Parts: sequence; structure tokens; C-alpha cells
Amino acid sequence: MTICALATAPGGAIGIIRISGPQTLEILSRVFSKDLRNAHPNTIHYGHIKNGKEIVDEVLVSVFRSPHSYTGEDSAEISCHGSRYILSKVLALLIENGCRQAGPGEFTQRAYLNGKMDLSQAEAVADLIASTNRASHQMAMSQLRGHFSNELATLREQLLKLTSLLELELDFSDHEDLEFADRSQLYELAKTIDNRITQLARSFETGQAIKQGIPVAIVGKTNVGKSTLLHRLLKDERAIVSNIHGTTRDTIEDTIDIHGVNFRFIDTAGIRQTSDQVEQIGIERTYQAISKARIVLWMIDAEPSTEEISNITQRIQNKSLIVVVNKIDKHEIPLLSALTSHRPHPVIKIAAKYAQGIPQLEQAIYDAAQLPDITHSDIIITNARHYDALIRAHESIQRVITGMDQQLPGDLLAEDLRLTIDTLAEITGGQITPNEVLGNIFTNFCVGK
Amino acid sequence: MTICALATAPGGAIGIIRISGPQTLEILSRVFSKDLRNAHPNTIHYGHIKNGKEIVDEVLVSVFRSPHSYTGEDSAEISCHGSRYILSKVLALLIENGCRQAGPGEFTQRAYLNGKMDLSQAEAVADLIASTNRASHQMAMSQLRGHFSNELATLREQLLKLTSLLELELDFSDHEDLEFADRSQLYELAKTIDNRITQLARSFETGQAIKQGIPVAIVGKTNVGKSTLLHRLLKDERAIVSNIHGTTRDTIEDTIDIHGVNFRFIDTAGIRQTSDQVEQIGIERTYQAISKARIVLWMIDAEPSTEEISNITQRIQNKSLIVVVNKIDKHEIPLLSALTSHRPHPVIKIAAKYAQGIPQLEQAIYDAAQLPDITHSDIIITNARHYDALIRAHESIQRVITGMDQQLPGDLLAEDLRLTIDTLAEITGGQITPNEVLGNIFTNFCVGK
Repeated sequence: MTICALATAPGGAIGIIRISGPQTLEILSRVFSKDLRNAHPNTIHYGHIKNGKEIVDEVLVSVFRSPHSYTGEDSAEISCHGSRYILSKVLALLIENGCRQAGPGEFTQRAYLNGKMDLSQAEAVADLIASTNRASHQMAMSQLRGHFSNELATLREQLLKLTSLLELELDFSDHEDLEFADRSQLYELAKTIDNRITQLARSFETGQAIKQGIPVAIVGKTNVGKSTLLHRLLKDERAIVSNIHGTTRDTIEDTIDIHGVNFRFIDTAGIRQTSDQVEQIGIERTYQAISKARIVLWMIDAEPSTEEISNITQRIQNKSLIVVVNKIDKHEIPLLSALTSHRPHPVIKIAAKYAQGIPQLEQAIYDAAQLPDITHSDIIITNARHYDALIRAHESIQRVITGMDQQLPGDLLAEDLRLTIDTLAEITGGQITPNEVLGNIFTNFCVGK
Repeated sequence: MTICALATAPGGAIGIIRISGPQTLEILSRVFSKDLRNAHPNTIHYGHIKNGKEIVDEVLVSVFRSPHSYTGEDSAEISCHGSRYILSKVLALLIENGCRQAGPGEFTQRAYLNGKMDLSQAEAVADLIASTNRASHQMAMSQLRGHFSNELATLREQLLKLTSLLELELDFSDHEDLEFADRSQLYELAKTIDNRITQLARSFETGQAIKQGIPVAIVGKTNVGKSTLLHRLLKDERAIVSNIHGTTRDTIEDTIDIHGVNFRFIDTAGIRQTSDQVEQIGIERTYQAISKARIVLWMIDAEPSTEEISNITQRIQNKSLIVVVNKIDKHEIPLLSALTSHRPHPVIKIAAKYAQGIPQLEQAIYDAAQLPDITHSDIIITNARHYDALIRAHESIQRVITGMDQQLPGDLLAEDLRLTIDTLAEITGGQITPNEVLGNIFTNFCVGK
């Protein structure tokens, strides 16, 4: 079936209608001023879309030929004037002439079904379109370009090797003299595979944090300047507005972008009061904020009491703590030896009111996130479906490892090895993927992609 | 200078960035994975946009070569994933590499300056993008396809002919025996030209009405069913919602679309009350509504009094009146001989409450608008700048005609003839068009067109 959909948001100067399927050029030729049935691939054709004698629009048609198209099918894009009237007319005409309105993500689904990309790459397409900053963009781009898929292919190879070695061990078990593989070597290989699976699964937390914004808490005593600092950080951010017309980015409440990574200030309701005096954040609320944060900014404007030090440090076990010394314009604050000797936390001196030390603080926040180098070669999992599969793959390979520990014979391990391989294959859709899984994946896409 | 801009609305599955100017392929080749400097015209290239080693997006680039492009210059379109982050990154990259952000309508302005279209066609591009119904779409399409321009060219030819004949008359004025052109023939030609100019100028009112919605007033006595009818008409309209995802059209308050033409109900504040009993439209307000309308729906549910007939008919001199007889489900209403004999107004019998007779009423409303057949061959002026020029052209040709009446010699008429020609040429921009005029025209465009 040949499908069509509007692929651009309505309201621009131009609008693109996408068509894909075996009848693409047949149907197009019925409504276009030229016969495109023998059009060369990757060519552009100027003409008009007509409804009988009525001219609906003057357009450019781009022609793509199977298999060298996004979907792998014959396909085309019609570049129309961006009037809603025109776009709906052209779509209606295509449907009258045999196209079906595409569902969400149906073009990408076809690309997957026709082997143009695997499932995780298809999912990356949606992430890429939704990306709003450098970090989420790079994670999606890396996934789209197949870095995660390649990693999974390597794991699969290793698992197949492990399987075949165990099978050899099985087949030739009566030949005791044949030591094809040392069990301890197989054990090491299984461990290596599991480590990599676990590492990938762990990256999910970072991936989620980057996608949703890395949670940061600002804590400290009343009147220490938390509100001033928050406003300062957010204000600096708001000033960085793209000056490119039509592309001003959506700014998310209480979020700042440092080096392309989103940091999200949590539990700021109390802090956002214009004056610290109005603040009434209880000590319990502070602890809650710390528990939800990955990074804690602890503001002080004087040497903190032993009690305050112990209150804070007890609760930041797995957090990154930054000590922010405010009001350095007013007086010199002691070296905080009691705190910094305990554990080497970064200490940033600022005067929030006068915007002193803010760039240094932002750098410290970025460093405190301890992000992997988010380049295209690093793999960070961002998708819950992938995470789930990785966790299950980890569980089954763990059973293999335990079985080895218990000196179980190879044939008893084979089933869990096979399960590990199949579970990882779910991610890329190498196995036959159930329709409901595909449905879940592609309904989250926009129409036209 | 090479310009670039986002040509689609942000937020779709794909976004198109347009580039035009002599450096297009040079600049593109710096940020694209392939060298496009020798790319063939009208070809599509798959690759990625890169910022140094960072891959910004996987894209399709369409290449157009001067003069066979929209602007007439070398140009290109980059089809990106529709992420705001990506689109602004790609734009920023292009600007870093030598492009300038395009102003509103700058691509179309270049198309005009490079002779790809005349000014009135350029203006039609903006109208086409803004078109929301069949009528406004067809008016814009007709203008874009040059029907108005051709008409003006014909007028120009006739004016030049008239000028040359008058000049001949002048040059050979001493040869009394040479009657090159009969003055009365010239007079007829001038009249014909003026008639056509006047006709075009008159179409502006219709053009405006179509653009803004043809004003319709519903009048009648309290409790006659005006509110029920209004809701019925609007409700039927609301049900006609495009079922094409993403293209549901903006519905304008109190507006209905009949055969692709917008009709706008005026002064409905009183009528929109849910019950006619609440209505308190005074007689004066009714008259005001009539004065603003082009079409008046006069609702009755019984033989109207002589006073009501005279009140209404006195005020509908230049209006189209439709007599709407409501509540035909309840009782038969007399033939209204007093009214219909006076002037043959259409009489439509309805039962608004039961949706009876509504299609017939809609057809009557459409017919009452007495629209010219809005096909591509009919010319309707929609642009105030054109109207202004036509009126001035009419005034100057009128002076020519008056001069002929007064037997003025040809050389005294030549100046006004020249003025008429120049004034009409303003419309298509055949004359050198002042920058401020161009500025006014193109600032109303969207960026990217």
C-alpha cells in the first residue's frame, strides 16, 4: 500500500508531503503535470499538482527509487506552498488517487521492515527529532549511526563464540583428551560479556538524566543567597536565546544548559521567592531535595557549624557536592578546612548578587555531573525498552556464569546463552518483532516520519 | 550575498533550510559530507552536515542551478530531521561559513529582481501561502500564474498603440490629407481601456469580501429563530473538519464555508444568545447590521406586516436579500405576495430547529453573493496596492478621454497616457520600483519564502 503524509509542521513558507510505496510514481503521475513513472532516482521535477483542470499548486517533486530511499520503497516528496488549504487539498487528492494516510512513524517503520535500519536506529530517529540540546542530540545521533547496534553485534558475536565453544565441549565430551577451550577462558569471556551488558544498562541512568535534565539541588541556610543564585543562573541562561528567527528554543522552567547539557533545579518553589527571608524550607525538605539530586550546591556565607557540616555530608553519599561560598564581596570566608579535609569537594567562591564567579560555578556543575564524554563513540542508553532488554540479558548471562561456577555441563548452559542472544536481538529487532512491540515504538513518532 | 533561512515551520518530522546565492554550493560543500560544487542541477544528495568532526544531521540536499531555480540563483534545500536544535545548528553553521540569515520574503524578492516573476506574482506567493479556502486560493493561484499580469500587458499594448497613433497624428499634423486614425476610433480605444481598468478596480471590493469573508446579516423579529439558524449554520460547518491529521483548518468565529467561499455573519453578539427571548437587538442595531452586510437573511415565521416589509426593503438597496421562512414544520406560511411581487427575492423555507432546508439556504446564500466564476481565468484584484494603482490609472486615462472630448491635440494628451502606462507598470514592477515599495511588499512575507 502506498502511504502519504504531511512531513512538516503546518504554517511555514513551504510544506512537504511525503509518499512511499510501490504505487508512488503511478499515483503522483495522475495528479502532477508531468509523467513521473520513468523519472530517474534522486531527481527534482518542477510542475503543478492538478485536480482535473484546477491547479492546486506549483510544486517541486523529488523522486526516490527503491531501494535507495528512506523507506527502501519507491517514494517522493512534494514541496508545496505552505498553505494549510493547499496541503490538505494535495493530501486529499493523493488519497483519492489511491494513497492511504500514513500512521505515526509509518515511513520509519517501513525503513525498518525493509532493512534500511534496525529498531534501535528507528527509535533514534524519534529521539533525534525530539532533541533539544547538544547532549540529547548527540546520544540520538550516535544511536542512529549504529554505534549501539555495532556494540550489540560485537556482544552477539562473543555470545555465539561462547555458545559454539560450549557446544564443542558437549559434542566431544567423550574425548577427554581434547581440551578445546579452557573452562576458565569461557568463564572469563562470559564475565566480559556481562560486564559490558551491565555497563550499557548502567548508562541508562545517565541517559535519562541527560534527557530529562540532570537534577541539581541548591541547599543552605536561610538568607545565604540561594534565591539570588538561582535567579542569576536562570537569567544568564535566558539571555542565551538563539537569534535565528523561527528557531528560538523552548526554555524549560528552572533549567539551564551548560556546554549543551541540561541541568534542572529541583524543588525550587521555596527558593524562587524573591527574598530569602520569605523562605521557609524546613530541614526535612532540604534533605528531600538532596535525595532527588545528582548534584548538590551547598551555599554558605560563613564557616559552617560542625552540625551543618555533618547534616549535609551525611546525606550526599552518592551525590556530587559543590560548596558554594557566597558574598565574597563582603568578607573573606575561612578555608573550610573542616569540610574540605574530610573529602575534597570543589569550593567555588561567588558573589551571586554581582554575578561574580558564575562561569566558574557553571563549569564546576558540569564537571560534577561526571558525564561520559558524550561524543559519537560513547554509548549511552536512553530508551527504557533497551534498558529492560539489557537487564534481562544480564540476568540470563548471570545464570550462565553461576552455572559455570557450579561446573554445570555446557548443554545445561546453552538455553540461557540462547536467551541472552535473543534478548539482545530484541533491541535491534533482529528477531521477529511482535506487532504490538512495533506498534508501541512507532505510535510515539510523529506522522510524516 | 548568499542567504539562508528555515523555510518550514519548526516542529515537524522534517525541516527544510533554504540557501540561495552565488556561494551556495561553495558554502554547502564546507559543511556537507560531499563536495557539491560540481553537482548537477535538480539532483538530490544524501550525506551528513558536519561541524568539524561532529555530525549534526543526516540530510538530503537538493541542488538547483542558476537560472533554473526559484530565485534564479544557485540554490539548495537541506532536508533535515525536524529538531529545533538541529535546525538552529545547521543555520548557525551556514552563517559561520559565509551565509547571511535571509529577511522576510527575500527569496521571492530575489526571484522578482532576477526576472523569475513580476511583482504582482511575487505578491501572489504570499497570498497563496495565506490562503485558507478555495476562493482565496484560486485568486492567488490565478495571480501567481500571471493572468493579471497578462491582462496588464494587454492594457499596456493598447495604451502604447493609442500613444503611437496620437504621436503620428502629431508628427503629420501639417499633412491634413493624412487621416491615420480616426479620432473617434482613438476615443473608443481609450474608453475600452478605461472600462477594463475600472472593471479590474471594481473587482477589488469582491476580492476583499472573499478574502475577509462575505458579510451576511441575519435579521428578523424576536423569537423568529435567528439564534437557532445561526447555530445550525455554524454547527454544520464545524462538522466539516478535515480528517487529515495535522491539517485541521483554523475555523474562524461565525464564519461558514460554502462551496469554498467564506461567509461571515456580522453583529451576531445578540443573536448568539441561546434563546431568542434574551435578544434585545434594537431596530437601530438591525439597520446597522444590514448596512454592513452584502447579503441579508430576513427571517420571518408569519406573513410580515406592511411596516416590517417597508422597513426592511427600504434598507437593502444594494444588498442581496434572502427571505427565510422559518418553522415550516409548524404551519404553512402565506406566499408573501406583497413582498415577492415587489422584487423577486429568493424565498427559502426552513425549519431551523430540525435542520430542514439548510442546504437550500446555503445555496441561496452562495448565489446571492453573485460572485464572478472564480476560476483561474477570472481576474479579481485582492491587493490594495494594485487597487490604488488602478484607480490612479483610471484617473489619468479619464483625463485623456476628457481631453479628447475637448479636442485637445495629441501632444497634450501624451503625458497623461504615459502616466497611465507607468502607473499600471507599477503593479508588475516593470518600472524601476523604489526600495521602500519593495520593502513594504516583502516584509509581509514569512522568512524562508
